[in-house]
Amino acid sequence: MTESRLQSFLAECRERVTSILDAQLPGPEIQPGPLHQAMRYAVLGGGKYLRPALTYGAGLAIGLAPETLNAPACALELIHAYSLIHDDLPAMDDDDLRRGRPTCHKVFGEAMAILAGDALQALAIQVLASDDTVPGGAQARVAMLDTLARAIGSRGMAGGQALDLLATASGQEPDLVTLENIHIHKTGALIRASVRMAALAHPELDPEPAGHLDRYAKCIGLAFQIRDDILDVEGETTLIGKTRGKDQVQGKATYPTLLGLAEAREQAQVLVAEALTNLQGFDERADPLRRIAHYIVDRDR
Amino acid sequence: MTESRLQSFLAECRERVTSILDAQLPGPEIQPGPLHQAMRYAVLGGGKYLRPALTYGAGLAIGLAPETLNAPACALELIHAYSLIHDDLPAMDDDDLRRGRPTCHKVFGEAMAILAGDALQALAIQVLASDDTVPGGAQARVAMLDTLARAIGSRGMAGGQALDLLATASGQEPDLVTLENIHIHKTGALIRASVRMAALAHPELDPEPAGHLDRYAKCIGLAFQIRDDILDVEGETTLIGKTRGKDQVQGKATYPTLLGLAEAREQAQVLVAEALTNLQGFDERADPLRRIAHYIVDRDR
Repeated sequence: MTESRLQSFLAECRERVTSILDAQLPGPEIQPGPLHQAMRYAVLGGGKYLRPALTYGAGLAIGLAPETLNAPACALELIHAYSLIHDDLPAMDDDDLRRGRPTCHKVFGEAMAILAGDALQALAIQVLASDDTVPGGAQARVAMLDTLARAIGSRGMAGGQALDLLATASGQEPDLVTLENIHIHKTGALIRASVRMAALAHPELDPEPAGHLDRYAKCIGLAFQIRDDILDVEGETTLIGKTRGKDQVQGKATYPTLLGLAEAREQAQVLVAEALTNLQGFDERADPLRRIAHYIVDRDR
Repeated sequence: MTESRLQSFLAECRERVTSILDAQLPGPEIQPGPLHQAMRYAVLGGGKYLRPALTYGAGLAIGLAPETLNAPACALELIHAYSLIHDDLPAMDDDDLRRGRPTCHKVFGEAMAILAGDALQALAIQVLASDDTVPGGAQARVAMLDTLARAIGSRGMAGGQALDLLATASGQEPDLVTLENIHIHKTGALIRASVRMAALAHPELDPEPAGHLDRYAKCIGLAFQIRDDILDVEGETTLIGKTRGKDQVQGKATYPTLLGLAEAREQAQVLVAEALTNLQGFDERADPLRRIAHYIVDRDR
C-alpha cells in the first residue's frame, strides 16, 4: 500500500463519517441553535479522523465491511471531538487554537462549549445504541458501549486528562513511567477502543487475532502520543493546527524532554515495529492498519 | 400509602442505589484519586434520589421487581449528579452551594469538576451497558441507552440548560411557552426517561399502560420544576440546600415571576391531578408513583 493509497483510505473514512455525522448532528436552525452550531463546529472542522479509520481498518482486517461499522466509527469521532473541546477549556489546557481555528469556547463561549462536549458524548452513545447494522446485533452493541464507556471514563480518557493536570500542577517533572501512564489513559484508551470495537462487532472472532489487534492498538496509541510530543517541539504551527511549543510553556513533561528528541523518535519506531509484528498473522486486508502504523510516526500534523 | 410509607419507599430506593454506587465508584485510593473523590462527593452527597425512585416505582406498577432495575436506577442518579456538577460551574449558573455543601468545583477546582461530570456520564453508560439483570436483555438495554442518550443530549437535558442560559443572557423576560420549553428539556426529559426506562425493561408491556406512564412522567416533570421555582422564592436555604433567591438575583424567569405564587401553586396541582388520572388503570402497586406525585408539589426541599 503506497502513501497515496493510505491517503485515499483516510479520505474515504473521513467522507463516510462526515457525511453521516452531518446528517446526524442537528442543524443550527434547530433549538438551541448556538449549541448545535458549537457541536457542528467541533465535529465537522477537519481533523485526521484517525479513530474511525482504525475501526474501519480493523474491520477490514477481520473481514467486516466498512458499512457495518459506521456507528462505532461515528461514535468514536464524536467522543474525540467532545474530549478536545473540554481539554481546550480555560480551566483545563487553556488552548486558543485547534485544527488551525479558534477553539470552541473562543467562538461560542465557555458555557456553550462545556454543553457541546456533554451533548456530543450523549450523541455518541445514541448513535451506537440506536444502530442496527452491526453484525453482532444488540449483544455486540452493549459490548461496544461498555468498552467505549470504560475507555472514556475515570479509568480511561477522563482519568488520563486528570492525571495530566495533576502532574502539571505538582510542579515536579514526572518520570517516564508516570508520563506513559498519563498517555496510556489520555489518548491510548480511546485508540485501543477504536480497534477493539471492530473486533466486538464480529460475532465469532477468535481470541487470538483479537489479542493481536489489541496489542497493535496499544503500541500505536503510545507511538501516536510520542509523535505528538515531537511535533510540539519541531512541528509547524500552521501544519499541526495548534500552538507549537505549548507543552514547554505549560511546563508539561513530554517524551522529548525526558528522553531527548533522537531517543523519542527511536522509541516511536520500536513501538511501530511491535505493532506491525502483531499483524503478521493477517493477510493483505490488514494493509490499511499497517500503513496507519507507519503514518502515525511519519505524520507532520 | 401514608406519608411515612412514602418516606420508607424513598429511603429504600436511596439505600439500594447508594450501596451499589458506593461499590461501583472507584475509591480515592485508585488513580486519579482527586477525580474519584470528586465523583464520590457529587454522587454520594445526599440528594432526593427521585429519579431512581421513579424507575423503581414505575417498575412496581408494571410488575417488575426493584432488583431487576438497579442498573437504570443507578445510571439515572449518576447522570443527575453529573448534570448538577456542570450546571453549578462558574461558566454556567455559578453556584457555591448544593445540597447544603460547597459545590463540587468549590472543593475540587473547576478542571476536576468538569472531568468528574464527564466521567460520571461515562460511568452511567457503563453501568447500564454491562448490566445483565434487566428482564428484556441486551435488546432492552440498547433501547434504554438510546432513550437515556436522547434525554440528556442537545435536544434533551443539555439542550435545556443551553436554552436557559440563552434566555438569561438575552436580558428579556421569556414568556410562559419559552419557560415551559426550557424546563421540559432541562429537567423534564430526564424525569420522563426515568419512568420510560422501567417500561423499556419490560419485555412485553402493552403500548397503552406505557403511554399512560409516559404522560404521568411528563406531568410530574413540569410540576417538579414549578415547585423548585416556588421553593427558590419561599423555601429555606437550610432546607433546600442551595442559595435561596438565586433565580431572582440572576434575573431568571420562573413560574412565580410569570404567573404569581398562587397561580404557580395552582398550576402545579393541576399537573399532579393529571398525572394521577393517568394512573387510574393501575392497581395498588402504582401507589408509590401516586405518592411521589403528591410529594413533588408538597416537598419543602
